[in-house]
Formats: sequence, C-alpha cells, structure tokens
Amino acid sequence: MGSDQKMRIKEWLKENRARGTRLLQILVQEGSTRGNESGAQAIVIEKCRQLGMNLDIWELDGDELSKHPAFFCDRKDFTGNPNVVGVLKGTGGGKSIVLNGHIDVVPVGDEKYWGDDPFSGRIQSGRLYGRGSTDMKGGTVAMLMAIEAVNALGFRLKGDIIFQSVIEEESGGAGTLAAILRGYRADGALIPEPTNMKIFPKQQGSMWFRILVSGKAAHGGTRYEGVSAIEKAALVVEKIQELEKLRNQKISDPLYKTIPIPIPINIGKMVSGQWPSSVPDQAVIEGRMGVSPEETMEQAQKEMEACIENLNQLDEWFSLHPLKIEWFGARWIPGRIDEEHPLVKVLKESFQAVKNTAPVVEASPWGTDGGLLSTIANVPVVVFGPGITVTAHDANEHIELEEVFAASEIIALTLMEWCGAAD
Amino acid sequence: MGSDQKMRIKEWLKENRARGTRLLQILVQEGSTRGNESGAQAIVIEKCRQLGMNLDIWELDGDELSKHPAFFCDRKDFTGNPNVVGVLKGTGGGKSIVLNGHIDVVPVGDEKYWGDDPFSGRIQSGRLYGRGSTDMKGGTVAMLMAIEAVNALGFRLKGDIIFQSVIEEESGGAGTLAAILRGYRADGALIPEPTNMKIFPKQQGSMWFRILVSGKAAHGGTRYEGVSAIEKAALVVEKIQELEKLRNQKISDPLYKTIPIPIPINIGKMVSGQWPSSVPDQAVIEGRMGVSPEETMEQAQKEMEACIENLNQLDEWFSLHPLKIEWFGARWIPGRIDEEHPLVKVLKESFQAVKNTAPVVEASPWGTDGGLLSTIANVPVVVFGPGITVTAHDANEHIELEEVFAASEIIALTLMEWCGAAD
Repeated sequence: MGSDQKMRIKEWLKENRARGTRLLQILVQEGSTRGNESGAQAIVIEKCRQLGMNLDIWELDGDELSKHPAFFCDRKDFTGNPNVVGVLKGTGGGKSIVLNGHIDVVPVGDEKYWGDDPFSGRIQSGRLYGRGSTDMKGGTVAMLMAIEAVNALGFRLKGDIIFQSVIEEESGGAGTLAAILRGYRADGALIPEPTNMKIFPKQQGSMWFRILVSGKAAHGGTRYEGVSAIEKAALVVEKIQELEKLRNQKISDPLYKTIPIPIPINIGKMVSGQWPSSVPDQAVIEGRMGVSPEETMEQAQKEMEACIENLNQLDEWFSLHPLKIEWFGARWIPGRIDEEHPLVKVLKESFQAVKNTAPVVEASPWGTDGGLLSTIANVPVVVFGPGITVTAHDANEHIELEEVFAASEIIALTLMEWCGAAD
Repeated sequence: MGSDQKMRIKEWLKENRARGTRLLQILVQEGSTRGNESGAQAIVIEKCRQLGMNLDIWELDGDELSKHPAFFCDRKDFTGNPNVVGVLKGTGGGKSIVLNGHIDVVPVGDEKYWGDDPFSGRIQSGRLYGRGSTDMKGGTVAMLMAIEAVNALGFRLKGDIIFQSVIEEESGGAGTLAAILRGYRADGALIPEPTNMKIFPKQQGSMWFRILVSGKAAHGGTRYEGVSAIEKAALVVEKIQELEKLRNQKISDPLYKTIPIPIPINIGKMVSGQWPSSVPDQAVIEGRMGVSPEETMEQAQKEMEACIENLNQLDEWFSLHPLKIEWFGARWIPGRIDEEHPLVKVLKESFQAVKNTAPVVEASPWGTDGGLLSTIANVPVVVFGPGITVTAHDANEHIELEEVFAASEIIALTLMEWCGAAD
C-alpha cells in the first residue's frame, strides 16, 4: 500500500470524524444491556445497509445452541434482539477477515456513582461518556468507519469483510457462537475490545466457581461448641491463593512479562452467617478462575478440583464435611494466535504507520469472544482496540475519541493489507 | 424447713405433674414470637389469677422507655402484648423474691429442619418439643408450679413473691426494664433460663458490632489493580481473635475454669462482593462481643474500638481507608452476685436436697435479663433452670420434663427458705 493511500485514509477519517463521533454517541445512547440490544442493533443495521453490505439478521435459537458444549448461557429468550452480520464480498483472491464486536453492555450498577445519565453519550475534553462507550461501541464504530473509509475512497478489496455485531459477549459468548454455527469463517479475525491500543495475540480465558463451606452452628456465647464457616472459608481462600501462585509460576510466556499475575484466581464474593450471635454454619465463596491460553478449560477446572479435594483430605473437619465446588454462569474460552502470525504482523505494521511507534504486544487479562472463534471455528484471532479496561465495567465509563479514530485508521490499513487492495 | 415439708412438696409435684405438663404444652402451643406474645400471656394471667395473685398487666410505653440508657430495642409498637406481674404478698418479716421469666421466643428458623410443627408441644420419651419449651417456658412453668405447690399445701410465706412474665428478653430486655421502671424490686431474684440445672451467679453480657471494611474494585482478570475487601477483612478477623485471646487471658475467676473461652467474640456474619469477576470493594462483618461480669459495657466497647483503631494505624491501606465500627441491635448487660450470697446458698442447699448431689456453679456464657435487674435495679440475681442451651435457639427445641419438675421442686424449697415459712 502506498503512502498516498495511507494519507487519503487519514484525511478521510479526519474529515468524517464528526459523523463517526455522532454514530458512537447514538449507539451509546441506545443503552443495550442484556435483553435490550435491539435499539442499538437497529443503528448498526442501518449503517451496514448504507455501506452496501449483505445483511444477515437473525434471532438466536436457544434450544439449538444449548446442544453445543461451548454454550454457557442462562438466557432463555432471544426474541426481538438479533445478531447482525454484514458481509462485503471481495473481488476474489484475497484473505477474508471477520471484524467482530459485541453490542451488549454490562449493567450500569449503582447510578449514584455516575456523574450523569449512564447513557448520556456526553462529550467532554475529548472523551465520550456512557455505559458501552469503551466496552465496546468505540471499537464497533472504529470498524464501521474503517470500512466506510475504504469504501468511500473507492478502494476495492480482494478478500471478504465479515462484519459482526453480536449479542451476549458479556454473558459467555452465545452471540458469537451462533455466528460460528451459522457458518461464518474467515482467514483471520479482529476484535476491537478495549485493549488500550495494545495488541493481544493471546487472551486469557475464565470461568466461575462456587465453593460451599460447611461449619457447625452454635450460640456465639459458646462459640467453641461450633465450627465457624468463616474461619474454615479462610483456609479455602488461602489454599486457592497457593494454587494461583503455583499456576502462575509455570507461566514463562514473554507476553506476560509485565503482568504481575498472568492468570489470577479472583475471590469475588463471600457470604456467610445470618446472625451476629450465632456461629455461622455455612459460607459460600464465588470467584473467577483465569485460564491460560496454553491450557484447556478442562485442565484448569481439574486443577482447581484437585486443590479442593486435597484440602478435603488434609483438613480433619473437611474430611467429614467436604467442600463442594460448582462451576456456574458464563465462561470464556482462552484464545491464541502465534505472535508471528501474518495477521499480527500486518496489524503491528499498521499501528507503526499510524502511531509512529511500535505497539505494545501482550496477553489479555480477560476472555473475549476470540476464544470461541479460535477454538471452535479455528479462525486466527487478534484483539486490539481503543478504550481502556479500567473504566469498562465501572461508573463513568468513557473513551478517548482520539483513540477511536486512530484505531479506525489502523484497522483500515490492516484491511487494505490483509484483504489486499484490488487494482 | 422440716423434711416432712420437703416430702409433701415432692409428693404434691408428683401428683400434679400431668397438670404442669399440660400447662407447659399449651404455653408452647401458643407460639409467642416477638409481637405475638399476648396468647401465651393470657394463659399465664389465668394461672396467676387461679393462684390468687395481685395482677399487674400493662403495655410497654416505648416513648417513655426510650429515654432510659439501658433501652436497646428497635420495636416501635407494644400494643396488645403486655408485660405481666403477679404479686403474692407475704405475711411480713421475710425476704422478697422476684421470679422472672420471659414469654417471648426466638423465630423458628427454617421449618424444614424441624421434624414436626415447631409449636407442636409434642411429648415423646419424656421430652416436650417446640420453640420456647427450653427457652424458657419450661422455667416459667417450674416457677408457677412451685408457687402452686407452696400455696396448695397451705404453707404461708413471710416474704413477697413477685412473679414476672416479661416480653422482649430475646431482643434486649425491654420487658424487664419496664418492670424495673414500674418500681418492682426485691431482696433477690431468680431467673430460670435454661442453664441445664447449673447455678449461674454471674452472667456474661454481650453486644453486637458491625465493622465496615473498604477495598478497591477491579476486574478479576487484573485483580492486582484492586484491593480485595475479603483479604482485608481476614486481617480484621485475625485482629479480633487476638483481642479475644488477650481479654480471656485476664479472666481468672474460678467460675470460668471449665469454660474454654469465657467471654468469646463471635464473628457471626460476613458479606463481601457482588460479582465473581470483580475484586470486592466492601466487606461487612457482624458479630457479638461477650462482656465479662467484672467490666462495664463501656469498657468492653472501648477495648474493641481501640483494637480497630490500632489496626487503622498499623495497616497502610486502613490508614488511608479506615475501618468503621458500629454498635447496633440488642445488648445484654452482664450480671453478678457474690458466690457466697445467701440466695445462692439457699439455692445450692435446695438443689442438694432434691438432687442428692452438689450443683455445678458456673458463669453463664450468655446474657439474661439478670444484668438489668442487678445493674439497674440493684437486685441480687441468680440464674438457674431446666432446659439446655444447645437446643434453645435450634430446630427441634425440647426440654426434659423430669428436669422441669426437679427445678420446680428446687424453686419451691428455695421460696420456703428464702421468703421464710410463717408458722
């Protein structure tokens, strides 16, 4: 690709920045929490139509999907909230790409922590605010504007672009799974989740566990007659921390070199006891286990189960009142692509061309739909996008507009290189 | 008192055991949880009337009571659920006694753990089942049958008997406080709480605390960016356990010699976190602090506050995000009487006469209304009764009928000796 083409893409994005910003704003204003995705999808559909894409809009079939082993979803009804795929056929002879973004956003949480309406789309000091701005409507707009730039400038690509706006990423990936089972495949895939412009060839997977700890009730005044489930739960937490340490010691991948705990095990919740004057007879611990890109979900699961079983054998109380572990809720399969894969190479070069500096390449600390695409569909996936994780699920979520358009430019250059520009 | 009198009391109680059992049964069947005390009080009132007592039946005045520093009660409305006091005037020249029992019972808890209706009053293998049987309607019936035995046998006492059936013991003692403020005093008081026939000249007090622990939220995949409130709460639990140890090391009273932890601090509840994939940013710990009969509530409170303040100073995180402690809910003032007090002596001798063995004398592991009577009204109190603590607040609460009537006999002998039989 010539520097002239690059320059035209940069110029076009600059000229059309207000339109792109407005697109992001209305997308954020259409708050698309779980079960309420249709309004935002309608905006995406209209944009795809304007871009001349072949549209495929369908509702997920829960009964059908539930037969698949990678369906981890407790949603029963998908009526009225479709998945959207828009395909731009290439002229042929090039490599195809899936551009995947999720339209669902996490709940706003306690509104009192927001300085404003959580779906305001307010712009201030170069930032756009609102739930979903960073995670990941900013990324979706970056993709759509990249496609539009290429289109508008009259560049024709050899490979197909398969743009996907899916539901359910935040709850385990049923939307992307449905797109895979519908047959969508490509030579590579890009998911612009909020990586803070880092390139993530590998993504950590994760799954949720629940551990039930038994104690023995007694009056608080004779607490020595009982067994405190809180004290016993502390042993479980300690044991899990040991397991986390052991698992992380085994990780030598340089992609993790700056990450303090590559695959953390997070204890997110603990509930025990009902009455100040009683010895608590049960504790429930819930957490998230990080899964390395180099292992399967099953391997990680077995390590945790062995750890709990070990505690059941070592501790006298647990040997009589064994801990129980359950795996529940959503899970995200880890994903990986070789760091030398041509898609990573093209993306790195595009980044260098736009930013005049080398990108940071790391492993992601969280799962994305990339795990499903790479594991189930065998599509090489790289995750790269604007927005920063730290604001993603928090109050006052926002995104730097500058980065949205820098990402858009990088994606446009990547499309040109990867799919190949026809003469 | 002659052995003939003792024998007649024993005989009378044997002959009237079926009636006493029936009284306990209907009292248990009138489940008198908080706010529903009137049905059981009606049975008590009728019994007092039959015994020829001067009845004083009144509803607590929450507004008036709330001015008293020992009123620890969140109940707003006492309408329709009265306190009951029945007085039998003595012939004069003897010592008076308060016989105090509470009519309120704790909630039944989860009914699935009960083998039967929680208010069945079922009798099986010499035990009577139901919420309140042990705590403490068995004790109330033991008192009433003791009074009836003395009456029926024509013994006239010199001192007054002030029988009290109070509400609210389980929630901080507002019923007994009201009886004190109404002017009832005596030379001694007996409370037949379920001591398993042990004599408790001292009673542990207690109060509830709540500690708020701050953490810092973060995504579980980058948990090193957050501060886990669960991990910080573990430090608080550890520190409280140290305080418990220090406080108990100071206790040398021989009454505590067989008790593993004389004044425990029980952590009864811990709630932290909302989401498996997030680092929890708050934890709430609730517990019960035991108060020694040799200290005041304020002294105990200050020790706990100093312990928390100390942790706030030592721990870097807490120095910036200090722990907060609140005192809430009910409290029970500790109580004590000298082990050589004549009332204890009379009770011990009565026990010996009935049981042909010396009683166990200990300090109680929980508070009773005795703390209010001894501290606020300056009435020497001893706690002694049938029933065992371990079933008191649990499912399938029950009492050994044999012990109810043994206690009744011991109380009858105590009345004869303490109040003095007129010629």
